[in-house]
Amino acid sequence: MTRWPLPEPMKLALEQAHAAARAGEVPIGAVIVKGGQVIAAAHNRPRALHDPTAHAEMLVIRAAAAALGQERLDDCDLWVTLEPCPMCAGAIAHARLARVYYAAPDPKGGAVEHGARLFEQPTCLHLPEVYAGLGEAESAELLRDFFRARRR
Amino acid sequence: MTRWPLPEPMKLALEQAHAAARAGEVPIGAVIVKGGQVIAAAHNRPRALHDPTAHAEMLVIRAAAAALGQERLDDCDLWVTLEPCPMCAGAIAHARLARVYYAAPDPKGGAVEHGARLFEQPTCLHLPEVYAGLGEAESAELLRDFFRARRR
Repeated sequence: MTRWPLPEPMKLALEQAHAAARAGEVPIGAVIVKGGQVIAAAHNRPRALHDPTAHAEMLVIRAAAAALGQERLDDCDLWVTLEPCPMCAGAIAHARLARVYYAAPDPKGGAVEHGARLFEQPTCLHLPEVYAGLGEAESAELLRDFFRARRR
Repeated sequence: MTRWPLPEPMKLALEQAHAAARAGEVPIGAVIVKGGQVIAAAHNRPRALHDPTAHAEMLVIRAAAAALGQERLDDCDLWVTLEPCPMCAGAIAHARLARVYYAAPDPKGGAVEHGARLFEQPTCLHLPEVYAGLGEAESAELLRDFFRARRR
């Protein structure tokens, strides 16, 4: 069997997740793409930055907005290796991101298809298109390996 | 009638909200207190910073964590002039803040007593104590005046 090749932005997000693991952070990575160009990439860094908000999605949204010099990312797509949490899903809505692609679901911490299901709330101010599952196996394996090694 | 005086941290949060209005930002302010000392204060700055995540709560949480050199704010209290949105409520949970005091409710954007009611979700990883309403009139008036002036 030949697996369908992952889209380039998800490969880059997974590379970011690997970089997080090497730095001792929970391995989650994200990139933002505009018009086919990657304009920002980041990984989870709450420990290194002493910042509980420093999830990959938050850092990449802030970097993309800074790069564009604007508060909103209307024409941009976010690629991330794990289902966003409520904080990050809220930031995605504030940023007006057009599309969100995430790899693995997160039944414990996710807020897209789990928990608060933020984009389904009537009060949600912006609904991105959401595509899940591309790169799920790779992302889930990386997270599993990381937490397995930590438990030893 | 004599109004009960507002606690000092809420007065400071309202001063921050006034500073936001003067800077042309939606007037929301926040402070973080630890052991009776204010360790960080911030106001809403998404426009100035070109950062859709730059809500008062996010900035004050990041500033407090940086000041303490740690990722979690277990012994800290957040005072904020408006009910936190999903992004900020999520950050409050990640930061493990002990108590949250907010002034005005936000039926459209709030996620504590409205919308996703994030702290009531079974998957919410941390429940702060929440106290609402102190300074509600002052905060609501400030927001009303700001949006009324903008509509002209």
